[in-house]
Amino acid sequence: MLFSKKFSLPLGFSFMGVNAGLKKEDLDFGVIYSTEKANAAAVFTENVLCGAPLVIGKKHLKKGFLNAIAVNSKNANVHTGEQGLRDALLTCELVAEKLNLPNAELVLPSSTGVIGEILPMDKIKRGIECLDRELGTSRKNFTNFCRAILTTDTTIKWAIVEVGKAKLVGIAKGAGMVSPSLATMLVFLLTDAKIAPHELKAMLKKSVSHSFNSLTIDGDMSTSDTVAIMANGLAGEVDLAEFYRALHSLNLHLGQKMLRDGEGITKVIELRIKNCSNSKDAEAIAKSILNSFLVKTAIFGESPNWGRIIMAIGKTKIKKIKPHLIKIFLLSRGKKILLSDVNLPQNASNYQSVLKTLKKKEVTLEIDLNLGDYEKTFWGTDVSDQSVKLNAEYIS
Amino acid sequence: MLFSKKFSLPLGFSFMGVNAGLKKEDLDFGVIYSTEKANAAAVFTENVLCGAPLVIGKKHLKKGFLNAIAVNSKNANVHTGEQGLRDALLTCELVAEKLNLPNAELVLPSSTGVIGEILPMDKIKRGIECLDRELGTSRKNFTNFCRAILTTDTTIKWAIVEVGKAKLVGIAKGAGMVSPSLATMLVFLLTDAKIAPHELKAMLKKSVSHSFNSLTIDGDMSTSDTVAIMANGLAGEVDLAEFYRALHSLNLHLGQKMLRDGEGITKVIELRIKNCSNSKDAEAIAKSILNSFLVKTAIFGESPNWGRIIMAIGKTKIKKIKPHLIKIFLLSRGKKILLSDVNLPQNASNYQSVLKTLKKKEVTLEIDLNLGDYEKTFWGTDVSDQSVKLNAEYIS
Repeated sequence: MLFSKKFSLPLGFSFMGVNAGLKKEDLDFGVIYSTEKANAAAVFTENVLCGAPLVIGKKHLKKGFLNAIAVNSKNANVHTGEQGLRDALLTCELVAEKLNLPNAELVLPSSTGVIGEILPMDKIKRGIECLDRELGTSRKNFTNFCRAILTTDTTIKWAIVEVGKAKLVGIAKGAGMVSPSLATMLVFLLTDAKIAPHELKAMLKKSVSHSFNSLTIDGDMSTSDTVAIMANGLAGEVDLAEFYRALHSLNLHLGQKMLRDGEGITKVIELRIKNCSNSKDAEAIAKSILNSFLVKTAIFGESPNWGRIIMAIGKTKIKKIKPHLIKIFLLSRGKKILLSDVNLPQNASNYQSVLKTLKKKEVTLEIDLNLGDYEKTFWGTDVSDQSVKLNAEYIS
Repeated sequence: MLFSKKFSLPLGFSFMGVNAGLKKEDLDFGVIYSTEKANAAAVFTENVLCGAPLVIGKKHLKKGFLNAIAVNSKNANVHTGEQGLRDALLTCELVAEKLNLPNAELVLPSSTGVIGEILPMDKIKRGIECLDRELGTSRKNFTNFCRAILTTDTTIKWAIVEVGKAKLVGIAKGAGMVSPSLATMLVFLLTDAKIAPHELKAMLKKSVSHSFNSLTIDGDMSTSDTVAIMANGLAGEVDLAEFYRALHSLNLHLGQKMLRDGEGITKVIELRIKNCSNSKDAEAIAKSILNSFLVKTAIFGESPNWGRIIMAIGKTKIKKIKPHLIKIFLLSRGKKILLSDVNLPQNASNYQSVLKTLKKKEVTLEIDLNLGDYEKTFWGTDVSDQSVKLNAEYIS
């Protein structure tokens, strides 16, 4: 799947990004608006203490339509009680009024930032007031929106793919969830393809499971994670299989961008779980490995310390795992090197090539469990002394 | 419970610690020997890929008796297949032969160190040969044993308590499980009290659940963790309730010593879970908080970032948790400060005293869930940039 090199957005979407006063100078409030009522779907965090915008957003998406998405950064509107719910709803009402929408349910609210502070509605209102003059379809409008949703990200993250005559743009935010309490992944996917709400929902769910939900940076799960898609149909129908492939490669691409922007990380780890019993076990094993502090520090230290991977597999407590069946490989230019040789460090003839491969910025590991035929790929990162410093020094 | 200030070991136990050549110079092989066949019990790691010594040890403890414990450091004998099992058994056979024991089942094998390397039996044999001249009851013999079982610990860890006429000594090893692949907790408890095997087992299990199993440093679970107890009866019977209190305070004490020796850590966190639904939920919530990278870095940074605690509670996915019922307190000299006030940082009158309390080396948090009446205390640590460096630089 190739990403468009020319900047050409799907039809019918306009954007705004402004400073509403939540941050001192940076942009902090953004709106996406579709001239047509769009079919829409979203996937939210599984964190049971999720934010007020997600509670309201789930309600608004029940009918499967959206005209607009309103996002603020700096304040997550999480753990803010009844007041938080009222504020998220009021945001939708004010945006709907300003955009002449028939009702507030056509607006998805989204917030990212500090947990536990009341949303400053005077500032949000100031942001909404800007819609009159700041909403537009230019590249500037678009990148302003991309900037307005950032917290600790070092760069805006977006990409465009084409599917037949239609286009699909993805905008993401998230310093890899390795960031402070501002740590949230927001992804907004917009297309002018015509796709029925139930198709949209099924495709989004499937793709998210194999992209964003298969990557982890610090094992922490934000209270605000949201992946939303709008399809306004202005470019007509498309081949659904082709659309799915485009959607999924876009999601994988945005996921990689978030991983690489993880605070203080130095390496991205690709972990291929092979011949596992089922999807649940594969996920438990992958997350145990990719969230293990000892595995992450070993990768940071470029050490072939595969015993830590064995430890992480075993601590899943999955009883059917058999030690003598497990094989751990390091992939180097398509070649597989068996890491889990007893006495690897001292004896293996390929020890030097292992050390060389571990020096790269992308480390690919394959775990063959020999328990079945299920396989899935996951992604994670190392952890550096800088990751700790950045997270410790940040004061919300 | 007061710990004995004078050095007076329980009757009938002798000790050895020598350099058998596994490490370059440091002591690396130790034996505990009881002249009487002792009632015995042990609790092992739940990691399903546990080491060969644990597989053999579980068999040997089935009858509930031990005469000796043989421990080596530097090599964990984990993930070493059939050869590993033969080596652990052979170690027991050779120790039994040397000590004139009727069978190898009276010996508990224990290994800590690197995973995935074959145990160098020539060196282990050299260590066992030393029993002739190095086994003894002196303080030197005892501290040599304490030293021989260490890996990345910076100090030996032991304490003695008295129970009536009997004594109970505990010897521990573990740089807080924050250490490299050598990360293992070993605890050996020895008493001359007379206690039946089933009593011993029940008391050990209960105490471990509320001490060692309630503390976490990096969330990683060693493949070799072992807590074993021997009671040889030479001092006669004791009050069982009194013995349990002594045992438990000893275990708590040794646990605290391990936490404080955690590599690179700067603070110990005590976490009191109050008014929870049940023990399973309390444990899930506590471990989610204490293993959260974002919570640990916040504590390291002395930041009152309680939103991260909310995030960690929510990611347990326990549906009955209700956001409006949760209260997070910081304890300061017996005074409780409510942390989870919306807008704490800006508005709270006690903000300065929160910051001051967070500067201490011991931080006590209380989470009131208002879901039931179950309560339990857990312990953890922060994570520092030094923790990452120490773990990354270590090459097994």
